[in-house]
Amino acid sequence: MIRVAVVGGSGYTGLELLRILAVHREVEVTMITSREYAGKPISLVHPNLRGIYNMNFSDFSLDKVGDRADTVFLALPHTVSLNYVPKLLEMGLQVVDLSADFRLKNPELYKVWYDIEHPYPDLLKKAVYGLPELHFEELKGAKLIASPGCNATATILALAPIVASGITSDLRFVSDVKVSSSEGGAKPHEGSHHPERENAIRPYEATGHRHAAEAEQELSRLAGKEVKVSIVPHAVSSVRGALASAHVWTDIPLKEMDVWKRVAEFYRGRKFIRIIRGNVHPYPDPKYVIGSNFADVGFAVETRVNRLTMFAAIDNLMKGAAGQAVQSFNISNGLSEDEGLRLPPLRPA
Amino acid sequence: MIRVAVVGGSGYTGLELLRILAVHREVEVTMITSREYAGKPISLVHPNLRGIYNMNFSDFSLDKVGDRADTVFLALPHTVSLNYVPKLLEMGLQVVDLSADFRLKNPELYKVWYDIEHPYPDLLKKAVYGLPELHFEELKGAKLIASPGCNATATILALAPIVASGITSDLRFVSDVKVSSSEGGAKPHEGSHHPERENAIRPYEATGHRHAAEAEQELSRLAGKEVKVSIVPHAVSSVRGALASAHVWTDIPLKEMDVWKRVAEFYRGRKFIRIIRGNVHPYPDPKYVIGSNFADVGFAVETRVNRLTMFAAIDNLMKGAAGQAVQSFNISNGLSEDEGLRLPPLRPA
Amino acid sequence: MIRVAVVGGSGYTGLELLRILAVHREVEVTMITSREYAGKPISLVHPNLRGIYNMNFSDFSLDKVGDRADTVFLALPHTVSLNYVPKLLEMGLQVVDLSADFRLKNPELYKVWYDIEHPYPDLLKKAVYGLPELHFEELKGAKLIASPGCNATATILALAPIVASGITSDLRFVSDVKVSSSEGGAKPHEGSHHPERENAIRPYEATGHRHAAEAEQELSRLAGKEVKVSIVPHAVSSVRGALASAHVWTDIPLKEMDVWKRVAEFYRGRKFIRIIRGNVHPYPDPKYVIGSNFADVGFAVETRVNRLTMFAAIDNLMKGAAGQAVQSFNISNGLSEDEGLRLPPLRPA
Amino acid sequence: MIRVAVVGGSGYTGLELLRILAVHREVEVTMITSREYAGKPISLVHPNLRGIYNMNFSDFSLDKVGDRADTVFLALPHTVSLNYVPKLLEMGLQVVDLSADFRLKNPELYKVWYDIEHPYPDLLKKAVYGLPELHFEELKGAKLIASPGCNATATILALAPIVASGITSDLRFVSDVKVSSSEGGAKPHEGSHHPERENAIRPYEATGHRHAAEAEQELSRLAGKEVKVSIVPHAVSSVRGALASAHVWTDIPLKEMDVWKRVAEFYRGRKFIRIIRGNVHPYPDPKYVIGSNFADVGFAVETRVNRLTMFAAIDNLMKGAAGQAVQSFNISNGLSEDEGLRLPPLRPA
Repeated sequence: MIRVAVVGGSGYTGLELLRILAVHREVEVTMITSREYAGKPISLVHPNLRGIYNMNFSDFSLDKVGDRADTVFLALPHTVSLNYVPKLLEMGLQVVDLSADFRLKNPELYKVWYDIEHPYPDLLKKAVYGLPELHFEELKGAKLIASPGCNATATILALAPIVASGITSDLRFVSDVKVSSSEGGAKPHEGSHHPERENAIRPYEATGHRHAAEAEQELSRLAGKEVKVSIVPHAVSSVRGALASAHVWTDIPLKEMDVWKRVAEFYRGRKFIRIIRGNVHPYPDPKYVIGSNFADVGFAVETRVNRLTMFAAIDNLMKGAAGQAVQSFNISNGLSEDEGLRLPPLRPA
Repeated sequence: MIRVAVVGGSGYTGLELLRILAVHREVEVTMITSREYAGKPISLVHPNLRGIYNMNFSDFSLDKVGDRADTVFLALPHTVSLNYVPKLLEMGLQVVDLSADFRLKNPELYKVWYDIEHPYPDLLKKAVYGLPELHFEELKGAKLIASPGCNATATILALAPIVASGITSDLRFVSDVKVSSSEGGAKPHEGSHHPERENAIRPYEATGHRHAAEAEQELSRLAGKEVKVSIVPHAVSSVRGALASAHVWTDIPLKEMDVWKRVAEFYRGRKFIRIIRGNVHPYPDPKYVIGSNFADVGFAVETRVNRLTMFAAIDNLMKGAAGQAVQSFNISNGLSEDEGLRLPPLRPA
Repeated sequence: MIRVAVVGGSGYTGLELLRILAVHREVEVTMITSREYAGKPISLVHPNLRGIYNMNFSDFSLDKVGDRADTVFLALPHTVSLNYVPKLLEMGLQVVDLSADFRLKNPELYKVWYDIEHPYPDLLKKAVYGLPELHFEELKGAKLIASPGCNATATILALAPIVASGITSDLRFVSDVKVSSSEGGAKPHEGSHHPERENAIRPYEATGHRHAAEAEQELSRLAGKEVKVSIVPHAVSSVRGALASAHVWTDIPLKEMDVWKRVAEFYRGRKFIRIIRGNVHPYPDPKYVIGSNFADVGFAVETRVNRLTMFAAIDNLMKGAAGQAVQSFNISNGLSEDEGLRLPPLRPA
Repeated sequence: MIRVAVVGGSGYTGLELLRILAVHREVEVTMITSREYAGKPISLVHPNLRGIYNMNFSDFSLDKVGDRADTVFLALPHTVSLNYVPKLLEMGLQVVDLSADFRLKNPELYKVWYDIEHPYPDLLKKAVYGLPELHFEELKGAKLIASPGCNATATILALAPIVASGITSDLRFVSDVKVSSSEGGAKPHEGSHHPERENAIRPYEATGHRHAAEAEQELSRLAGKEVKVSIVPHAVSSVRGALASAHVWTDIPLKEMDVWKRVAEFYRGRKFIRIIRGNVHPYPDPKYVIGSNFADVGFAVETRVNRLTMFAAIDNLMKGAAGQAVQSFNISNGLSEDEGLRLPPLRPA
């Protein structure tokens, strides 16, 4: 049994980690921290977990974590992880960080996108970007995993087979993402007020969305040249799920079968990728991955105008956050990739 | 491994059985039938199950089922199960019937409520009403399990501790139930059309709802005298979840603690009942049981008018249908009551 | 043209007043106040009103209001109106108060239900309870209108024909109300956070809901004896609309036609009441009054158990708040009762 | 008073016409036809209109329409209008056709996009494309108005200022549209079943969406050269509203103010266009136009990658269908452009 601490257990990614780890058979959750709720029962904040975790939130302390855990999942706001990661690694713990703090390889990009001088450029080199479909081998034995952002995950999974296969020379993409309200986190704010948020179709951060930095990093690496991605998120009414529609202009009219082949080849053997085609449900819809770690990938080819749209549908809290983090954790520890992640998507939901 | 057939696998209760059984460790699903989709892949009808069940729907035939299965789950429309159950039992199979066909003990009631002459009154005696919180012991070794209706389950679980404890002499109740759209099944109809169904708060079957018959049967048994229950369902906008608000007039102003004690005593040791009280989340809300087999039970006491409301919140497809059926199946086969049913509720969802 | 001020224009009832008054042909809105947003454009807070009200919010001051308005609509939190109403009346203005401050005739009840000593018991006598279906004649020329609460409106309209007709001797009722998220007002809070609020079926204030006080006052008056009403609200997922299901135990099995007659007689000639019966849409659903001032009233009679349920469906911001306030205002000023209120319900919505 | 017939009154665009015309002061609705419901009361099909239209649906007949109406609104499925329009015009009636049958100027395009040989190429020349923001002058006195499609309306309004101003040389666009369930019409189908449709984020007709034909026609005309538009619609959970996000690659990094100026100039004086900018609500959201005829137009400029996204938010049944049809009707008859269309958007909704 691997002893696990969840640091930042009161938010939605922390909660989702707890939900998964409750049925993970190789893991014992020994500690759940929350600054705000330390000393309070888990079920006070997470009524769904009543009767499942009969423990209280703890305050975070490096010593206690060091004593009680082998692996630490950090579900903390951006820049907060920076304070803990180096010490946790020194103490010999494995760290799975769900924030953006170690996702980018180039420290310069932290200035551009996050407005910080990154204090540990060396750790950036060591960190493995926790997208198993692209970094499976590197994840084995990884000590520091930087788990990807949700919109980045959907965007990368949609475009990776395209840029990797060189099927188009135009490497400038718009990823028009539709996201659910749980992406905004557990803290209420003006925009999350139900009467205002429900029935919205609302663009936000429509310029310079930060997940573009990771998407460009990963896709450029795959392409072997510079890829530019604009991520344009839109808030829609559902609670869970995100769909990336990545629009591609192609040099020549593509054949559907060609696209399908490239995608199928690229994802061959990847357990959580499902390639969607067919008449009844021709395109991915996040509705059909809810509660699971699947990413459904599909596409539409409009030869009339040399346009290809690549779609990727995920549950933003699963493949977009906690599920993917556990998947990477499993791989890094030599466990079955899908341990704790086997329950099929909930439908209808 | 118990070999299991799911008969009627294209509807929502069939689907939910498949979702649960996919992670059930003592069961192998050997056959999934559907008259309409025989020969077609499961994922054509259930896109969420793509990559999980790599088999096709079969046509139903008694012989084939007899060869391949030890237990048969029947997820069929009312009166259809009647045709198969006697033969399946004769062939030595265990039957878990999710229809209403064997729920009522008194054959006369089938005339009154279902407008049929019940052809197998003897089997009604043998059938065990599959509500484990009331029939745990009888379920052990049961060969024919009649799994309860969703609105009946919520109503009974809300009122059982009250009628069993004799805390009130007025045994006439209104159970005002709020239900989600998945209760209506997988077939589209006028009332399920999204633009009409979304944002509805719509009473339906507001007189003579059939689940009242089972609720009265079970509650009268517990009370030792005749109980009358009116179930008044209201369709609301969510996709999953049902809440019963059962309104009780009491003889004298009750104390909260008294009610709490009766409920806690009544449900002591019952794995899937959670009693809800407290300041932050004072009453049950089906939102916090979604995807799980929990029934959250709570109450409100208004001493000013001698009124007590008992609440029970369930996921209508889980504790209200497939989850409860698997729970009963587990008990009847000497398995752990929660095998296949351990994943915590999905939240937020 | 009557010059009108809307005091408290940044909340949802204020907004709804503005929406109606924008098309009211006998009214000129001369002032819209908001402490928080004074000096800011209306459209900053109300993006839907962009291009419709090209004015800014003002600070409230008695002098300015006195100069600019003939009628003042007060859309303020409870107890705040108390500070202004007496002076506004002295200055000769008409006041339509949408708070609870002048709804109850008996000052003692303010202690019991609102925990305040009411400072103006005399004004309570003068105030007219602004439910036109019950107080049409008194509203003519009224100088102080106390506009009813939303859940009270639905409960009273559902039960009024029953208590008035003496069709039952049991005058103790539960009004099980289902309400939309806009009832909670425009300020975000934990419970209104979209991921938590969406898909909820959540009882709240399940004991001692304050609207019961007005409902009991009005229904007792109609009955000529004491009526007891328990209002049990449940938050459901829609944004607009409320349904009261008021459960009645009858002495004898009633005939549908008898109930229908009493209801029809009681509401004869009332412009905004629609009595719902029939096969396709047999019961009221707030979905079909959205955006309008209608109250749809219907019923279900279950003779088997001597139970009658009375339903009333309203748009909580229209007939439940701003629409009804304008309706009363129209009557009090001798205008057509439906001026500004003629647009049919929005459907589908 | 202009006498008006609504042909095809049982669908959602027919219903929306009826809702608007009920408060239109220059119009008398003399006839509402429906093949399916002829002889049945309007309120049977449209429960929201109970008490508003106290008439029955009629069967359609050219003679009767000729006797009773001056203007005919045709809310019929595509290709059905073709049968009636020539005769109605001959009889001297004005026709406002909400189908696609007369939207395209080039008869060849009907083969390509609708797979029909258009029988009345001459009428195509006479028909005015009923988008008043582009064809105001032509609409005056128009006898045949071809009212635009909803996704075309949003796409054209988003892109028109861009192509008209020559601000970019790349005239190939993807319009990624998010649409509500009412776009699918009033007939239930598999995809509209609430449990499947709610919470969907579902691409459909992702190649060759027909509205692209009208969008290309109108935008090419404005640009003076060939414009290519791919419309990619996505079904999201709301009931009303559509947002077009039209993605534009620009030659050089644009300045926000430049874009704003072009948009403002282009739409100067257009009553139903609101240009959205600012900090609180920086982009259009269909939520804030619900129930109204407004189109909110906005934009995002990402200079980093020379990308511009143009947004247009409409209520698909109003500016996207019935509202726009009445707007064109008003202009054509010399009435105030906003007669019947003055009620502000409903919010929250």
